[in-house]
Amino acid sequence: MRFFVQLSYDGSPFCGWQFQPNVPSVQAEVERALSIVFGEPVTVVGAGRTDTGVNARHYIAHFDVSVWPDEETARLLRKLNAILPSAIVAEAFYRVADNAHARFDAVSRTYRYYIHTDKDPFIRHSCRCWYDFDVDAMNRAAQVLLGTHDFSSFEKTGGANKTSICTVTEARWEATDAHHLVFTITADRFLRNMVRATVGTLLEVGRGRQTPEWVAEVLEVRDRCQAGQSVIGEALFLTEIRYPYPLLTI
Amino acid sequence: MRFFVQLSYDGSPFCGWQFQPNVPSVQAEVERALSIVFGEPVTVVGAGRTDTGVNARHYIAHFDVSVWPDEETARLLRKLNAILPSAIVAEAFYRVADNAHARFDAVSRTYRYYIHTDKDPFIRHSCRCWYDFDVDAMNRAAQVLLGTHDFSSFEKTGGANKTSICTVTEARWEATDAHHLVFTITADRFLRNMVRATVGTLLEVGRGRQTPEWVAEVLEVRDRCQAGQSVIGEALFLTEIRYPYPLLTI
Repeated sequence: MRFFVQLSYDGSPFCGWQFQPNVPSVQAEVERALSIVFGEPVTVVGAGRTDTGVNARHYIAHFDVSVWPDEETARLLRKLNAILPSAIVAEAFYRVADNAHARFDAVSRTYRYYIHTDKDPFIRHSCRCWYDFDVDAMNRAAQVLLGTHDFSSFEKTGGANKTSICTVTEARWEATDAHHLVFTITADRFLRNMVRATVGTLLEVGRGRQTPEWVAEVLEVRDRCQAGQSVIGEALFLTEIRYPYPLLTI
Repeated sequence: MRFFVQLSYDGSPFCGWQFQPNVPSVQAEVERALSIVFGEPVTVVGAGRTDTGVNARHYIAHFDVSVWPDEETARLLRKLNAILPSAIVAEAFYRVADNAHARFDAVSRTYRYYIHTDKDPFIRHSCRCWYDFDVDAMNRAAQVLLGTHDFSSFEKTGGANKTSICTVTEARWEATDAHHLVFTITADRFLRNMVRATVGTLLEVGRGRQTPEWVAEVLEVRDRCQAGQSVIGEALFLTEIRYPYPLLTI
């Protein structure tokens, strides 16, 4: 029987979602905790590989178990959360078809990137920048990304992807107050490092060193060296993963 | 010439506000940074001694300098903030009378204590509790504290205070949502550990182990052993210090 588990996690103590030997990963912690709760070895397949330090809200992973315990779901979640480290919370279980796939079935992902420009001792998971930004210019530049393009210019070199073509359906900046900005981007798929390279590129426009037209040129040349620097992962959140079927909680 | 400096700080990297040899303190960092900016040895007197881990928003300290630099205040603050560690931010300078005193002149202090009852990987500076609380009962119990009383039952033993009498003018709980509570307390002065012992005592009422009347008895007996356990300092914020004169920014 296949299930989806919905998780939120603070990425800072982990070397990313994906299991790797000898380093902490979100996947390893989730598999360990699920195996204890279900009393059998459980492996999970995540909706995507978040990088070191990257956070997630409402992340989805699938897993199989032979028997679903005859127990209240709230109680199962409490058990699971008591075993999971404080940086990971399990929010829900969904019953899905036996061939449902957390990664391949996902039709879109949404990421958010947080920036602040004042000194704030209490903020975390946000990138501090020492400049004020022209949000309108960054939004004009973000428009360039909408639609289906080859995003090689924003892909970490050495990636094993067969294609660098992605369809971006949302890309916008919002100033939540005088010192806080958030960038939201939705696409069918993301390449390695794509959001962080995109944000770094748009910030070049925002601080007046480049024009929105330059972003169109960067996209066109398909050369990672032409785009802006990649920004830190700690300020990045994977915030929504959409599936073509409704998810029903168990 | 005497000035007030307004600061906010995350208390977690410090062993409290007050300078102590060989351990990190907010005071030592602030004195070091002010001495560099003003080019002379500067000592500061804080409005109160926050404990290890305790945070502050808009804290006030006074200091003397022989010459005020002929420089824009925004620029001075930027310099100071560049020297201060990331856990401390200087927000404003105020010109005050030469006999103004950050501690003795303060007519009231307000503290806030944060509690959450769900698992949340992104929350900091809040105390996680595993129970739901009866907020109305905690508010009835908090009413008992209003007015002028001897707060010995809520004072860390071994304190050097001449008197344990305080006048509490505000003490209330508020549920900001289903899983988040905040306690606000204002008094003319606070004894050592008073807010944390008070919160621990009120939580006993909130989880149904004691009645609001019990809090009145605890206050009456003047015995620290009768009150509830002290809660963690990381969830405590000193949030406002009031003076009988207006503070004018420089």
